[in-house]
Amino acid sequence: MVLLQNVFLNNKICDVLIDKNKIVKIANKINVSTDEVIDCTDKAILPSFCNTHTHACMMFLRGIGEDKNLFDWLNQDIFPREAKLKTEHFYALSRYALLEMIKTGTTCFTDMYFEVPETIKAVQEMGVRAVIPYPGMDFFDESEADRRVQRATQYLSEPVKNSKIKKALYCHAIYTCSEKLIRAFSDLAKKYDTYLQIHVSETQKEVDDCIQKFGCRPVELLYKWGIMGPKTLFAHAVHLNDKEIQLVKETGTVLAHCPTSNLKLGSGQLDFQKYLNAGLKLTLGTDGVSSNNSLSMISEMKIAALSAKNKADSVLAGKVDDIFQIATKNGFDAFGIEAGEIKEGNLADFILVDMNNQFLLPNNNLISNMIYAADSSCITDVFCDGKSVMRDKKIPNEEEIVSDFKRVCCQIL
Amino acid sequence: MVLLQNVFLNNKICDVLIDKNKIVKIANKINVSTDEVIDCTDKAILPSFCNTHTHACMMFLRGIGEDKNLFDWLNQDIFPREAKLKTEHFYALSRYALLEMIKTGTTCFTDMYFEVPETIKAVQEMGVRAVIPYPGMDFFDESEADRRVQRATQYLSEPVKNSKIKKALYCHAIYTCSEKLIRAFSDLAKKYDTYLQIHVSETQKEVDDCIQKFGCRPVELLYKWGIMGPKTLFAHAVHLNDKEIQLVKETGTVLAHCPTSNLKLGSGQLDFQKYLNAGLKLTLGTDGVSSNNSLSMISEMKIAALSAKNKADSVLAGKVDDIFQIATKNGFDAFGIEAGEIKEGNLADFILVDMNNQFLLPNNNLISNMIYAADSSCITDVFCDGKSVMRDKKIPNEEEIVSDFKRVCCQIL
Repeated sequence: MVLLQNVFLNNKICDVLIDKNKIVKIANKINVSTDEVIDCTDKAILPSFCNTHTHACMMFLRGIGEDKNLFDWLNQDIFPREAKLKTEHFYALSRYALLEMIKTGTTCFTDMYFEVPETIKAVQEMGVRAVIPYPGMDFFDESEADRRVQRATQYLSEPVKNSKIKKALYCHAIYTCSEKLIRAFSDLAKKYDTYLQIHVSETQKEVDDCIQKFGCRPVELLYKWGIMGPKTLFAHAVHLNDKEIQLVKETGTVLAHCPTSNLKLGSGQLDFQKYLNAGLKLTLGTDGVSSNNSLSMISEMKIAALSAKNKADSVLAGKVDDIFQIATKNGFDAFGIEAGEIKEGNLADFILVDMNNQFLLPNNNLISNMIYAADSSCITDVFCDGKSVMRDKKIPNEEEIVSDFKRVCCQIL
Repeated sequence: MVLLQNVFLNNKICDVLIDKNKIVKIANKINVSTDEVIDCTDKAILPSFCNTHTHACMMFLRGIGEDKNLFDWLNQDIFPREAKLKTEHFYALSRYALLEMIKTGTTCFTDMYFEVPETIKAVQEMGVRAVIPYPGMDFFDESEADRRVQRATQYLSEPVKNSKIKKALYCHAIYTCSEKLIRAFSDLAKKYDTYLQIHVSETQKEVDDCIQKFGCRPVELLYKWGIMGPKTLFAHAVHLNDKEIQLVKETGTVLAHCPTSNLKLGSGQLDFQKYLNAGLKLTLGTDGVSSNNSLSMISEMKIAALSAKNKADSVLAGKVDDIFQIATKNGFDAFGIEAGEIKEGNLADFILVDMNNQFLLPNNNLISNMIYAADSSCITDVFCDGKSVMRDKKIPNEEEIVSDFKRVCCQIL
């Protein structure tokens, strides 16, 4: 058991008791003998973040080929470097991504990349949570679709020996995956009662091409194919019309909003307030560093709030509590994880922030300060599943993780 | 003399020699006996930032009245609290703002608030640069205009005994200042060869009201009144038509772009790339924390870049080098200060960043990393005018500045 003493929570000072992996008691004063007592004077406890869309292993591509058109960027900068990736690199890249996530308060993420066993290894070592999907992409090659389905089945059938990791599936997008693959992955996800992710309606071009090819819009297409539902997550979903919003709502499909990436790539702005008012399940993701270029959910919240206000042309859009909720509770909810709020019975995933940090003063509104003013320097401690993954700003093996990442970058770049 | 050894600059490792307040030599290896040698292994040197629009003393209002309409926010939240301000508070508020500026790499700013001698006192103590304007606002009361002009004259006529501080003038806006006051302040600025600032075309409403009242747009009006020129700075300037862009260009008037504030208040997005292509002198400002809510120029650069791309609907807009330049060189240039670039002969205003910080790796593009990935944790040292104002992340008297700020906040809030 761990006791957090004198911690600031919801505008009060209290004690918080952690037993195993859960928050078991929150009270004014808790008198109990525990393995450890942490003095949290001048610290606040907040839920940690859940990043619902990223490509962790793209860390090595940060800052490569800035300010280029998509085609030039992919062909001149991204593809030639990705071609140099070897299986042995993915562990180092994943660990480095996790270092950045933990420093910025994230304890759970879902990924979209390759060589997933290496990422799982890194997640296990770093002690956080993750939903790791097996990759689906066949470029409309039927035999590749068959191979993918076979391997995905094998992936899901082998249980993962870590309660913090969930196996899942992703299909890249409707313009890289055949109907056959998407339907098969969806069936497989249902069979194994797990999650399916897909990039949807990120750009207007994707919508236009879909209409040309299939005679309907992307969300209508995926609805027809029967893949929507509460365990399906659409990444981006910038360009939805009213009918598509209705389909998302009706099926309980989850959306991963990636405002920075959408702005940076010129994809447009998701109408946050409209989606929220329609009752959609919105979560927040950073996307990969090649289009952000950070995995900080703190920075992502600020940009989500600003983008919401700009899109709606109203200061009343993108309210601080709504933005904080999509970055925390809604993300965990999407994966059936009881975290994202500091309350008794929830899993002990949380951060401690220094209330004397210059960005958190004055404490008129802690949530607003976290969204608009904070940065990584505010976070002192990060806990996941009742265990510390960052303590007093230190992450175990940090120097080794950095030097290993640099070694791998030298080989690829 | 101070020698920076083995510092990373423009993709090379070199030595940088500081003599008094200037960078005097940059070379592969410098052998000279100096008062101090700083080992900069694994550190990069970059110009510090110049924040060209803020309201430093509004620090106490951070997070107050989020997500409200302008009218409710001003009347329910801002005005009642500002009414409690006393002269003695401004020193503590200014010092706290400077703490945040220094931590995020800013060594020069220009302000817009009241009780300017208190701000000057704080600037002197903290060792940075500032352009501190005397406030102009008369709410169309002729006797108030006369009083303001008289006091402003007295302010400018008393020389400031600090080479890092320049006295200047501001008029709040055309909807709070009479033509008489604006013309008189402009004449006074010219007489004393100093700078004049004014909020211009921040909102569409301001433009519409101006057309209704004066029969022309704000920039046309200020051009008619003869106040434009290279020592005049327009803050915001979101809504300029082609004719106004031409007038700004022709007169060499400087613009302070405040993208976060413009997004947060729903004022719209300045067309960065259009203005840049037209050859306008663009600089960057955070505005006050009540509409940002941070004084970090690092965060401001990211939002400037994203906003530029979104507004232009193109990834080619808001290129990293252009964004970095408006945050550094262009700001210093606007006030005739030879800084904002690391080169021989320039004033020694610079920051050192930790190249092993997780946000600065890999080092594919340092400028891109500073804009899109960095936060305050990357900056280890800040120098202004050849002297350290932050060393190894420590600012002199930091704890006392924080506790004094908290004391003042308790009195006002």
